Amino acid sequence: MKTLIKNAWILTMDQALSTYPQGMLMMEDDQITYVGDYDALLAEDADEVIDAMGGLLIPGMVNTHAHVSMIPFRSLGDDCPDRLRRYLFPLEIECMNASLVYEAARYGILEMQRSGVTTFLDMYYFEEEVARACDEMQMRGVLGETVINFPTCDCEEAYGGLDYSENFIRNWKSHELVTPIIAPHATNTNDASALKAAHEIAKTYDTLISMHVAEMDYEMKEFRENYNMTPVEYLDSIGVLSDRLVAAHCIHVNEHDMKLMAARGTSVAHCVGSNMKAGKGISPIKEMVQHGITVGLGTDGPSSGNTLDLFTQMKTTVYAQKTHYKDRSLFKAEEILKLATIEGAKVLKMDEKIGSLEVGKKADLVLIETNSVNMFPIYDPYSAIVYSANASNVDSVWINGVRVLKEKQSIFNQQEIKEALMQEMKIFKQRAIERSKEL
Amino acid sequence: MKTLIKNAWILTMDQALSTYPQGMLMMEDDQITYVGDYDALLAEDADEVIDAMGGLLIPGMVNTHAHVSMIPFRSLGDDCPDRLRRYLFPLEIECMNASLVYEAARYGILEMQRSGVTTFLDMYYFEEEVARACDEMQMRGVLGETVINFPTCDCEEAYGGLDYSENFIRNWKSHELVTPIIAPHATNTNDASALKAAHEIAKTYDTLISMHVAEMDYEMKEFRENYNMTPVEYLDSIGVLSDRLVAAHCIHVNEHDMKLMAARGTSVAHCVGSNMKAGKGISPIKEMVQHGITVGLGTDGPSSGNTLDLFTQMKTTVYAQKTHYKDRSLFKAEEILKLATIEGAKVLKMDEKIGSLEVGKKADLVLIETNSVNMFPIYDPYSAIVYSANASNVDSVWINGVRVLKEKQSIFNQQEIKEALMQEMKIFKQRAIERSKEL
Repeated sequence: MKTLIKNAWILTMDQALSTYPQGMLMMEDDQITYVGDYDALLAEDADEVIDAMGGLLIPGMVNTHAHVSMIPFRSLGDDCPDRLRRYLFPLEIECMNASLVYEAARYGILEMQRSGVTTFLDMYYFEEEVARACDEMQMRGVLGETVINFPTCDCEEAYGGLDYSENFIRNWKSHELVTPIIAPHATNTNDASALKAAHEIAKTYDTLISMHVAEMDYEMKEFRENYNMTPVEYLDSIGVLSDRLVAAHCIHVNEHDMKLMAARGTSVAHCVGSNMKAGKGISPIKEMVQHGITVGLGTDGPSSGNTLDLFTQMKTTVYAQKTHYKDRSLFKAEEILKLATIEGAKVLKMDEKIGSLEVGKKADLVLIETNSVNMFPIYDPYSAIVYSANASNVDSVWINGVRVLKEKQSIFNQQEIKEALMQEMKIFKQRAIERSKEL
Repeated sequence: MKTLIKNAWILTMDQALSTYPQGMLMMEDDQITYVGDYDALLAEDADEVIDAMGGLLIPGMVNTHAHVSMIPFRSLGDDCPDRLRRYLFPLEIECMNASLVYEAARYGILEMQRSGVTTFLDMYYFEEEVARACDEMQMRGVLGETVINFPTCDCEEAYGGLDYSENFIRNWKSHELVTPIIAPHATNTNDASALKAAHEIAKTYDTLISMHVAEMDYEMKEFRENYNMTPVEYLDSIGVLSDRLVAAHCIHVNEHDMKLMAARGTSVAHCVGSNMKAGKGISPIKEMVQHGITVGLGTDGPSSGNTLDLFTQMKTTVYAQKTHYKDRSLFKAEEILKLATIEGAKVLKMDEKIGSLEVGKKADLVLIETNSVNMFPIYDPYSAIVYSANASNVDSVWINGVRVLKEKQSIFNQQEIKEALMQEMKIFKQRAIERSKEL
């Protein structure tokens, strides 16, 4: 099956940032076979022709940090201090179960696809269920079961996530769209032996490891007091700061931390919306990039960042960096779109396969329409995407060659997915409301 | 004509922040006649019944600072330092004309209405044309002609805006939707006598006066060097810091400035998106509010903030304040929605008429649908609006009792408005592209 997209303003996000204002892209099944100017001869070859109507065609966006099944928490206690320990942990232990994780994952995946996210890194419980949802919904997922120092909703023992992970990784290792990894919760919610064990599993099965790092004020204090080290230095001291590590947040990192991370090849999932909403601070990604650290963007869970799209994250990232350094010219729009696409793919070590529109890569594509009122005029297409667009401008999305969104309509039944989630959420919702009243 | 909206989750934004989860609102022509729980008897009286389907009904949003006719600049040179003097001023002088201002105003008004903005304060040239567009498009506008110390696209003489303003104010003084004001450009682009003259005009005709204040680094330096004062102190020293003044931006204000502003009753249009994109800094609105200064939100021009909706501004405002003060509990979602509605109305001294849903006020209403994927679940409706929603969630908008947006369709012909604008933009666009190449 050869599908042709014509009349597209193509932003390839390749090394040279090649663009084709009247571009054409051909895909054969799951692979991109041509990107360039319109080629009439080649076009004759297509089984299906799609007119992009001058829309912007970009690589599928890569969300490098999420807890997609936390949809049931959205809009609960948003402005409450220490929400993690007051709302999230207790409700998770009490009310999360396999069915709820599955239904919430389906809902969140639908939401991400609608907004142009084609790949996401997830860290949660019952990760088998998230994998099943990805498999059913044609979503590219890099999925890690949480490892943490207390009993959880899916493991009766502390650190039960270690065993879960080994099984999980074996089960999904050769799946086309699902890439299993391991995900210790954070530096301060795992002891050294658990972190080392998780890292060993990652080495054994050749996977990534993802973790919250240097996010919390109290985390910083704890490591200073207990070890006279930063969390990053601590991770390095136990051999876990490696090129397998995707460190989420990294708000509180100093010069020495960044040098260490660069030397070890550790990459960063920058979650600016979540960080700013919680008043935690702004991660110094300008310096990280200068140090040669690979940085991608992450939405965090829909409880923390409330939206699962990268448009909000791109705009907030550029606002935050320009303001933090008082420099309007910092992070030009094209550099921000790189973070959301090819750099995100590099964070996940998938840049051979996705992240840019190049021949031989997987057909993960996003078409952004330019008819809506907010998308005119366009002198600079990167600017239009970063500063003007929102998730509702996404017209079509292909993942691995399959069109999952067509003219803003998902191929999945949104109403059915929502109703199934509402059904599974009943007890959760009741307890969530009770907890709000208790606090 | 009596119109009933039923089955709405009504957020009145009145003094007590009353809400009606299964609410009903009745309007008679341009006025709200009932807000409360469903009343079957009263409902019988309606000529037209609209089912809000559980959507969120809020007051029309108030954009307290815009240059709506700058649509032609959007996405041009966004990341370029000192863009104002390198792009905006030269292109305005060379290419702006009455027809372009009119067509761009129509386009921008359409965009604002679609996003739930029902009132805006505008500052630009050919303001007669913006007024005409408001009149034709049922938009509530508080409009000020620019006064500036050089010849402009609509005045051959420096400070020609003073005369223009007097005529403009006389022409529109008694219009139902248009409120004419006067708008000196900034503290550093007007001399003292022009600022005083503008203020006298405002007093004579009992209007507001709006101006950019304490926005630029070089403005701060200039006032320190020339007067050993801040711009705010300077305005006070010449008698212009009054309760008529809507000061836009106010990024660089100190404790003494805020005390002065509070004492004089000066209000502030906070334009966080524009300020952060330009790397200028974050205005200390937490302290302003503590000092008793009235603060509203502004998008600034679509060249500066790129979008004309207040959803982006609400979210960015709350992110910026929580981060700046490292306090998650600061500016709860309901306080942010207040800034976008009733506080904005107070900034414009229109809170007797608009800004909340109360009996006797004008029927300026926004219905936000909750069916879209990003709007579920909702524990806290303010949270959903501030942290989750975007402009595309606006379903319906009424201004002065007239429904200008119905199920996401404008009553105005978007295609016609865009084509007319494109026609008028031809020379502008050519010169804009040439200028990009020169710079």
